[in-house]
Parts: sequence; C-alpha cells; structure tokens
Amino acid sequence: MPDGGDPTALGFRPALETVIPLARAGPIMLRVGVNGYGTIGKRVADAVRAQPDMEVAGVAKTRPNFEAERAVAKDFPLYAAVEERADQFGEAGIDLAGMVEELVETADVMVDATPSGIGAENKSLYEEHDTPALYQGGEDEDLVDTSFNARANYADAAGADHVRVVSCNTTGLSRLVAPLEEEYGIEKVRATLVRRGGDPAQSGRGPINDILPNPRTLPSHHGPDVKTIFPDLAIDTLGLKVPATLMHTHSINVTLDSDATADAVRDLLRDESRLFVIPERLDIDGAGALKEFALDAGRPRGDLWENCIWGESITVEDDDLYLFQAIHQESDVVPENVDAIRAVTGSADAAESVATTDDALDMGF
Amino acid sequence: MPDGGDPTALGFRPALETVIPLARAGPIMLRVGVNGYGTIGKRVADAVRAQPDMEVAGVAKTRPNFEAERAVAKDFPLYAAVEERADQFGEAGIDLAGMVEELVETADVMVDATPSGIGAENKSLYEEHDTPALYQGGEDEDLVDTSFNARANYADAAGADHVRVVSCNTTGLSRLVAPLEEEYGIEKVRATLVRRGGDPAQSGRGPINDILPNPRTLPSHHGPDVKTIFPDLAIDTLGLKVPATLMHTHSINVTLDSDATADAVRDLLRDESRLFVIPERLDIDGAGALKEFALDAGRPRGDLWENCIWGESITVEDDDLYLFQAIHQESDVVPENVDAIRAVTGSADAAESVATTDDALDMGF
Repeated sequence: MPDGGDPTALGFRPALETVIPLARAGPIMLRVGVNGYGTIGKRVADAVRAQPDMEVAGVAKTRPNFEAERAVAKDFPLYAAVEERADQFGEAGIDLAGMVEELVETADVMVDATPSGIGAENKSLYEEHDTPALYQGGEDEDLVDTSFNARANYADAAGADHVRVVSCNTTGLSRLVAPLEEEYGIEKVRATLVRRGGDPAQSGRGPINDILPNPRTLPSHHGPDVKTIFPDLAIDTLGLKVPATLMHTHSINVTLDSDATADAVRDLLRDESRLFVIPERLDIDGAGALKEFALDAGRPRGDLWENCIWGESITVEDDDLYLFQAIHQESDVVPENVDAIRAVTGSADAAESVATTDDALDMGF
Repeated sequence: MPDGGDPTALGFRPALETVIPLARAGPIMLRVGVNGYGTIGKRVADAVRAQPDMEVAGVAKTRPNFEAERAVAKDFPLYAAVEERADQFGEAGIDLAGMVEELVETADVMVDATPSGIGAENKSLYEEHDTPALYQGGEDEDLVDTSFNARANYADAAGADHVRVVSCNTTGLSRLVAPLEEEYGIEKVRATLVRRGGDPAQSGRGPINDILPNPRTLPSHHGPDVKTIFPDLAIDTLGLKVPATLMHTHSINVTLDSDATADAVRDLLRDESRLFVIPERLDIDGAGALKEFALDAGRPRGDLWENCIWGESITVEDDDLYLFQAIHQESDVVPENVDAIRAVTGSADAAESVATTDDALDMGF
C-alpha cells in the first residue's frame, strides 16, 4: 500500500478512508497482489482480473515452473517471492517485474495464496508495508483479525488488516449452514467429509486403494473451523481420505430447530447463488460428471465455485435434514477471496460484492 | 435333507426334532452343503470344516475356474450347479461328485452363497428336498422367514426353513447396535457408509478416481435392512462408493438414550467377541494396514471377521456417540453363516454357537 500512515493513531487503516470516497466518486480499480501462484493463487488472479473494480498488480512465485510461464504469458507482472531464488527465473528465460516486497508496496490488498504455514511467515512483510492481507484456510485462525465467508460474516472483515478466507470445506459448510440457520434454526450439524487425497496434479499423494479415517480422532478440524464463522453453532465433523482427486464429498446431517420439508429446503438452497442444486434430470453421479459438466459449460479449468448439492439427496426425516454435496477444493474459495478484497477495503457491502463477483464470473448454470 | 416329512402337518421341520436329541446324545456332525463357491461360499466352507460339529457335504459351482480347482484340491466334494454346464468341468479336468440336487438331498442345511438374486431362484430347489437354506444379504427379506444376526436375533431362526444372513454392512451395523441398545438405549443411528467399489478380484468395477453418492437418494438400503434385525430402531443411512477394494468404512453417529463416556463405550465394545477395537498403539491407519495385520496374524486370506473399530475414534459429545469402523465385506458374514446353521437346526443356543464358532476360527487378536 503506497500511502500508508499510522494505523494505531487513526484507529483503523487509512486506505479504508481513501478508497471508499474514491469508489463512490467513480471507477477506482483496486490493485490486488497475489503472493503464491499455485492452485488457488492463479485462480484468484484470473477472478480478480475479471472484476470491473479490480486489477492484478502482480503475482509472486518462489520458483519458475509452468505456472510461472503461464503467468507471464497472461501479462501478469511476475515477482520473485524469495530473493535467493530470483536468479532461477532469469535462467529459465522468465522476466521478473521485481521482488515481492515491491508488489506488496504497490498493492492495495495482498492475497496470500502460499502453502499452509507460509502465510504466517509472510505476515510481517504485509505489516511492514501496511498492506491488508488475505490468507487461506490452511493458516491458523489466531493469525488473523477475523475468518471470512462472504455469505455468513462479510461485514466482520471491514477494516481488518489480516483476514483468513476459510478452507474449501469450511466454506462449503458455511454456505450451507447460513440459509438453514436463518430459515429454520439449527440444533446440530453432523457432517462426514469424504475428502479427496490430493489435487489432480499432486501425484505424490495418497491414499491408493484405501479409505482412511483422517484424523482418526474426533472432531476433525472442520467443525471447530466452521465455528470461527458461526461461534454458537453445534457441529461435529468426521473426516476421511480416499483415492480421488477431483472434489470432496460431504455427507451432511442437520438437525433443524423447526419443521421443514425436503421441497422447501431444496427451494431455499436453490435461491442461493453459490449453492448449485444439481437437478436430478442431469443424471450427474459424481465429481467426474460434475467436472465434465463444468468444462462443457466453458468454466475456466472446469472450476465449480459453487457447492454442488444433489437435489434428489435432500431428505427430511423428522427433524433431520440429510444431503450430499461435492466441494471443488481448488476453486470454491475463489469468489470468497474476491469478496474479501472488497470487504477489507470497504469498497462494497456484502450484497453488492457478491452480486458483482458472481456476475463477473458468470456464476450459475 | 434325506428324512423329510410334511412340515405343514407337523407345524415345524422334523429335522429340528431329530437333530436336537442326537446332538444332545453325542457328537453328531451337521452335514452342510454350500451352493456357490465364490467370495463368501469358499470362506463359509472353510469355516464349516473348522467346526467340531459340522462337515462339508459338498460345494456347488456353476463353472470351472481357479476356485473350483482349489475346492477339489481341498477335498471338498464338488457338484455342478447347472446341468447344461456340467460337461465343462470334465473338459477342464475337474472331477465332479454329482449335480447340486444330490448335494441338497444329502445336506442337513444348505448355505446359498450365490450372487444376489440367484438365491431366490434356488429356493424351490431347497424346498423340493425339504432342506433348510441360508441365503446371503443380497436376497430380498421377503424371500425368507427371518433375517439373521447371531448377536442380535439368533433365536428367531430356530426351526426356520429359509433364513437370510444379512449383508456385510448390515451385519457390521447390527453387531454395533446390539450392545449399545442394551446398555444405553438408542434414540437414533445416523451412519454414512463409505463403501469399497468392488472386491479385490472384481477388476471390472469402479469407480476410478471418484466419490459417488450411492444411492443418490436417501436412505440407502442399509438402514431399512438393519430394521429387519431391529424393527423398532430409528436409523438413517447414507451410502457412497469410492475407488477402494479392501474394506468398507463406516462413519457412525449414535444418539444414545442415556449418559455415556467414551471410555465406558470403548470398554463395552471391547467385551464383544466380534468387535475388534483397534488399539491406538498399533497405529493402524486404514484397511491396508488392517489387512496386513490380519495376514501377519495368520488369518486365512487375511480375513477380518470382526468389525474393526478405531479405538481413538470413539467419542461422546453430549448424547452423541461417534466412531469409525471398517468392515471386511468378504468375511464378516462368515461366522454368522456358521451360527445360522446351528440356529436353524436347533443344535445350540446363541451363546454356545458363538463361542464354538469363535473358538474354532480363533477369533480375536
């Protein structure tokens, strides 16, 4: 952030004051830096570029690889994330725009999309340049001022310096919990997360031909993580890992506080822009068909930003709601990162931001 | 069954009268025929042979293959299950003892271990020879007089002509439900069954690299199937299929009627001979390690007849008990079939039969 100040003296970050009036005055473009250009970072960069009110100030990477080459091919200014390895880019024939410190100084907001734990190491960098930063769900909640889900607690991020966009699974659970909690009240959520072993390109990961309770102790971290968004929610989660790479699949039980029918719940969920209630007529049986469907629809990289809920699985037995949903671990947090950029800069309220993001990404099928 | 009669006139099968006195008088060997010598049939035949009060009258198969060759090598009299294909055995150099009708006539009890739906076609064969028959869980409950689980409803099979040993998953759920229901009472069971796509030798089955809600509608058949054993139990089940072949894995929630602690539940389950509470110190993370453990222990075919419950997963949150258990689809029904043989012939009560079976198989680790 170029025009810093003393945030302590002012009580909140000066950028919030400067950006809001300018945004109201006309089309100001938020300059967004992306640190870490892997699975999440490259998707966030594309999504940011698609927004009418944002531009990509640059992306930072630790080492040259095919993704670095593609970043340059897309005209994203590429910065080296580690001084000692910067020479490797030149040796690989890749031109750098500079070091990541320059990007952080230039950007209005940094999106840290580095691997789990590296975001924490980068925090001081963002603080030195007084640039607000978004971190991903792999970081600890104690690192940040607030955890974030656009549907559930957008306003909590206003003026925050450090915000954690919760993980793919927590995002998927939060999007589902929010409307159910508002409409029916929730007595308890019990969720079994059947998780993919690794992403498609993570060929070194497992399991092979096994079903692993993971962790073997309960609860999995997902339940407590959802509570960073819904502090008062009763939720127990169990996790497993299986030999699949495409998406996670959740087996969900929600004991509701008031009467519901499957049809009413289906209608409620259909009204949410980031919940895709898969119509039974499509005969989509799993993540493979979902990805194929997304690719046929022209989605970049076949991404499924929405929770994918099987419509015919939505069932109510007494007070218990059940359903299956698939969560695309590589992309469902992407629109949330975009919204978090607006939330921390105060450039839009939740409804405006979500509508803008969804419109720019052409959300929905 | 050689010495038949008119079961209608007598009100129940004469064999029950003849076998019980003989069993009390001295060591009578129950002659057991096995129709279908595949995954389940070959295991049941071995388990029957291991019993002190049973002998294998013969096994029947539709066609020659490696399992037929092994049956002969083990000195099991081999019968042809289909007249039209009987010649194939001779052409393959395999000697037949006769046709399946002869086996049914000779046997005191038939265990039908044919593929789902074939058991129903075989029912008239068993009726013609007045030989009581056990069927596997793939058959419809309407086919039989009673469904069977040794721990839960052994006595219901006394004198029955047609008994269905419930499926591997239903057996696994029933064994767990029985002690919990007795000790605490059960308000509701909610179970997510993460199922293997096929057995190790079923190389034509899937899924590959996917997680399939299966069925996509709720409940899966498992919940209603458990109710054939526990008619009054409230149970909701959800099923998925994943790319694994070794075992099923259940993510279990049981809302209990009375207070429990994890330690007390762990102790309760440890006392059950067919529940193997995996000690945390073994560091067994999944089905691969479980099978390796069973093979190291000298288990035939690496079979795990017991539910394999991760000790450290047993957790109580308020009224909710949670745990993970792995179910070996190829073998957990084997001791149940052995017990069902004694149950229908009235040759032992539940406690005697289970103790005899477990001792003969060297159950437990």
